[in-house]
Amino acid sequence: MSNDKVVQPFTIEFNLQTGLSPKEQPLQRRLSDLRGMVRNEEVLEKMIREEDLLVYEFYDMHSPETPFEVQYGTSITYPGKVGDEYFMTKGHFHNVLDTAEIYYCLRGHGYMLMENPEGEWDAQEMIPGAAVYVPGRWAHRSINVDSDEPLITFFAFRGDAGHDYGTIETKGFRKLLVEKNGEPEFVDNPRWKS
Amino acid sequence: MSNDKVVQPFTIEFNLQTGLSPKEQPLQRRLSDLRGMVRNEEVLEKMIREEDLLVYEFYDMHSPETPFEVQYGTSITYPGKVGDEYFMTKGHFHNVLDTAEIYYCLRGHGYMLMENPEGEWDAQEMIPGAAVYVPGRWAHRSINVDSDEPLITFFAFRGDAGHDYGTIETKGFRKLLVEKNGEPEFVDNPRWKS
Repeated sequence: MSNDKVVQPFTIEFNLQTGLSPKEQPLQRRLSDLRGMVRNEEVLEKMIREEDLLVYEFYDMHSPETPFEVQYGTSITYPGKVGDEYFMTKGHFHNVLDTAEIYYCLRGHGYMLMENPEGEWDAQEMIPGAAVYVPGRWAHRSINVDSDEPLITFFAFRGDAGHDYGTIETKGFRKLLVEKNGEPEFVDNPRWKS
Repeated sequence: MSNDKVVQPFTIEFNLQTGLSPKEQPLQRRLSDLRGMVRNEEVLEKMIREEDLLVYEFYDMHSPETPFEVQYGTSITYPGKVGDEYFMTKGHFHNVLDTAEIYYCLRGHGYMLMENPEGEWDAQEMIPGAAVYVPGRWAHRSINVDSDEPLITFFAFRGDAGHDYGTIETKGFRKLLVEKNGEPEFVDNPRWKS
């Protein structure tokens, strides 16, 4: 149903239940990738010695890095905790700091935790059907608070926005999300660096 | 869970089964909006006299029209035919012609029909989980080929891309999608203007 010139539309499948693509390879992050980012490092090391569990995976489709393209894919954060702290992604700013991103939640229950260089923080709840708008300048991290189900989102942002992981790896987020009395609660990150 | 400065992250819900938002108003297009775009105008007028059916609806969230923002929302094309031609959206180019768009299919069965000013055309099948990449320069139209279910997609593109409906309204698409012997088949549009 198409001619075959060079630049053509194309389709990639991401399963709505698992978030996984049958053909593309996701990037995977395990407990050991969260070193330096969790509240309880001792518990983390103990867990890693038992099994370096998969915490999350996501797709980087490598659209051309121009302001005209769209980067997109799914992100899957699995259920689990390190001590009382829920499984989460490392989180990132965009290299082009002012570019926004949209996350559409397909399955699960969690929060998008955000903060910006101006000192603000915010968290938006993610349930199936929630489209969370992450404005430009806001670092963002997905956190799964469900005890059983993966948190699955479909995301899209500008082709040249890029990922800046280093700032968050060095400074951490201002807030952490922990379970207290069976409920998620945001608390100050004692190791946050201003 | 947030402070209250001016620019804040936010969430809008789009139901995964219906595509509809409980709070936002969609834009609606009815049979009468397809005048001049279908193969059989007589059948169209007869149908409109009986009932000016809703053909599709979609959301325009009015993100600020800057290159840094993301426009997004859902599009719902209902099942039906005008004669042997499946219900479809009007379709459009982007005003910023070179900007791409991603459509993620949540439900239903259909095609994304595309063409560009260079004379190429293409169609990508949409089933649940299919992420269809519409490169810059490609006009695009959603077509529902299912007899019962709505075709529902979540879309995202650059904030300032805009919609150019006029070109397609004047020229039409090169191809039409009709049912032949119970199967969808792309045929030349006899009224297409080069």
